[in-house]
Amino acid sequence: MTTETSTTGLDAQLLRDPGSFRMLTGDRPTGRLHLGHYFGTLRNRVRLQDLGVDTFVIVADYQVLTDRDVADRLGEHVEDLVLDYLACGIDPERATVFAHSALPALNQLMLPFLSLVSVAELGRNPTVKDEIAHSRQASVSGLMFTYPVHQACDILFCKANVVPVGQDQLPHLEVSRTVARRFNERYGAVFPEPQALLSQAPLLLGTDGTKMSKSRGNAIALADTADETARRIKGARTDAERHITYDPEHRPEVSSLVLLAALCQDRDPHAVAAEIGDGGAAALKRTVTEAVNEHLAPLRARRAAYAQDLAYVRKVLRAGNERADALADETLAQVREAMGTHY
Amino acid sequence: MTTETSTTGLDAQLLRDPGSFRMLTGDRPTGRLHLGHYFGTLRNRVRLQDLGVDTFVIVADYQVLTDRDVADRLGEHVEDLVLDYLACGIDPERATVFAHSALPALNQLMLPFLSLVSVAELGRNPTVKDEIAHSRQASVSGLMFTYPVHQACDILFCKANVVPVGQDQLPHLEVSRTVARRFNERYGAVFPEPQALLSQAPLLLGTDGTKMSKSRGNAIALADTADETARRIKGARTDAERHITYDPEHRPEVSSLVLLAALCQDRDPHAVAAEIGDGGAAALKRTVTEAVNEHLAPLRARRAAYAQDLAYVRKVLRAGNERADALADETLAQVREAMGTHY
Repeated sequence: MTTETSTTGLDAQLLRDPGSFRMLTGDRPTGRLHLGHYFGTLRNRVRLQDLGVDTFVIVADYQVLTDRDVADRLGEHVEDLVLDYLACGIDPERATVFAHSALPALNQLMLPFLSLVSVAELGRNPTVKDEIAHSRQASVSGLMFTYPVHQACDILFCKANVVPVGQDQLPHLEVSRTVARRFNERYGAVFPEPQALLSQAPLLLGTDGTKMSKSRGNAIALADTADETARRIKGARTDAERHITYDPEHRPEVSSLVLLAALCQDRDPHAVAAEIGDGGAAALKRTVTEAVNEHLAPLRARRAAYAQDLAYVRKVLRAGNERADALADETLAQVREAMGTHY
Repeated sequence: MTTETSTTGLDAQLLRDPGSFRMLTGDRPTGRLHLGHYFGTLRNRVRLQDLGVDTFVIVADYQVLTDRDVADRLGEHVEDLVLDYLACGIDPERATVFAHSALPALNQLMLPFLSLVSVAELGRNPTVKDEIAHSRQASVSGLMFTYPVHQACDILFCKANVVPVGQDQLPHLEVSRTVARRFNERYGAVFPEPQALLSQAPLLLGTDGTKMSKSRGNAIALADTADETARRIKGARTDAERHITYDPEHRPEVSSLVLLAALCQDRDPHAVAAEIGDGGAAALKRTVTEAVNEHLAPLRARRAAYAQDLAYVRKVLRAGNERADALADETLAQVREAMGTHY
């Protein structure tokens, strides 16, 4: 099963010469990561890191400021995120985990980059439009509006040339590519144009049958205990048909559960469904619970161990910040040189 | 004559206790400063500096990036600006002259500050609207749109509590005040709310009778020679009436010349006009030329001396950058502490 990454030319290049790539990936620290994140992107990041791709993992902490509930518990959320990364196999010896708020030179790139995009272009960005529509805010902040430019800073400061994205984030990445291209044309070649590594995230629904999302309370977090996991899956929505099949179009809830078990067991979802057959929802849920808990057991054990040593977790982040900060300083110096602002 | 500053409560406070104020003032490096700048603001800045107000003078170099003609000669423009400052009496021992592009921590403030204003508020800003209308650009850049927020960074990074502004810039300063207030409410008291020191700039017209502006080619630059000054004033527009009076409403061109002489000689413009009387435009222009050249002679001599020592000029800017940078780092550390992003 290769659900995570489309086999594009880029993917083949990554396999052939991983050392020539630097990947920028990461998350907003909004709470504990869940199975949707894990099968959608986390596992693939670790795979690329393990292949030898130079890996930068950003904790996009400035991008949660407009969500007050989240911003008020920022430190906790950041800790949880780094714990999840470590638990999944992000290796601080090979990957640079950092928070963009700790990198002034990265953030300074906002100024020249903002000069390279128009307000009309920002307003047209469909992902921003979508985020605005889904935000819990009464008004759109300047930060949300300029988010794609800040993301360009996140990607370009370390000269990442590959960025794993979902289909919905392609317009964002396009802004980064545009900024890189325009900067190079205007001031001289400083930045690579980052390529999108399109992820085909498996469609995992939450326990209520809608998109899995922490804020909807329908997610199974990586950090949940085996018991919590069992309870959540037990309460998951299914349908009235006893015979279990894998048919995402007509039976989305049941199929999502089947797929979850299949992903955990690295099997074909049709085979998983056939095996359960007439066992009904109860048997399906038993299978899923076992599969999830078994698959996550080593990850959860690692997470629990790291959670006992938060000083280490903070050290990982600080070391990553330092490494990324030095790189940001270097890039900013090149930018200032190219722009003629080294007086 | 006190044309520069309205005698407000703030002005009285400044006179009483100048040491309790920090002033942020400055310019975009778009070319040599002219008499409009000088009588409008430069002279007043030097007065406040000499009173003992802690003076920060910003070279707002990122704010000219969207004007390609200017951006291409940035180094030269910055040098000219610092030369003009030194010539006017800005004293690097007492004032901090710096370029905001050299202060990553200042620029990082853009991120939290952008989260505190809405896109609607930015779009409503009349000064931005005006600048957009008068810009030579086909489209409005993200940089221009967010300019008031960047100005808030310029003002708040050094915790300036007084900012000399013209009437047209009041809405800009209001954004800085709003940002300071919202930040303090949201995260804890870090920033003073900067007060506007409203300047009543004398209405000096250019030699063609429209607003004096470098880009219109109708300005007398501080750096012009005495001969250039004479030539420019000789070509200035007047009117058909021989008898010279000071009547800005009905005789704007003649009155602007009278006012210019009066400002240079620190006299009442009516007295200047009366003295010329029936001498007509020729006598008026002779008077103005002499007055300007005499007033500017020591300033121009200083400028010429500094222009022979550009290494010193660069040293002034670098020392200012260093001092301001240290302060920006300090403020950013407080901001990160208040926001809980010191992990």
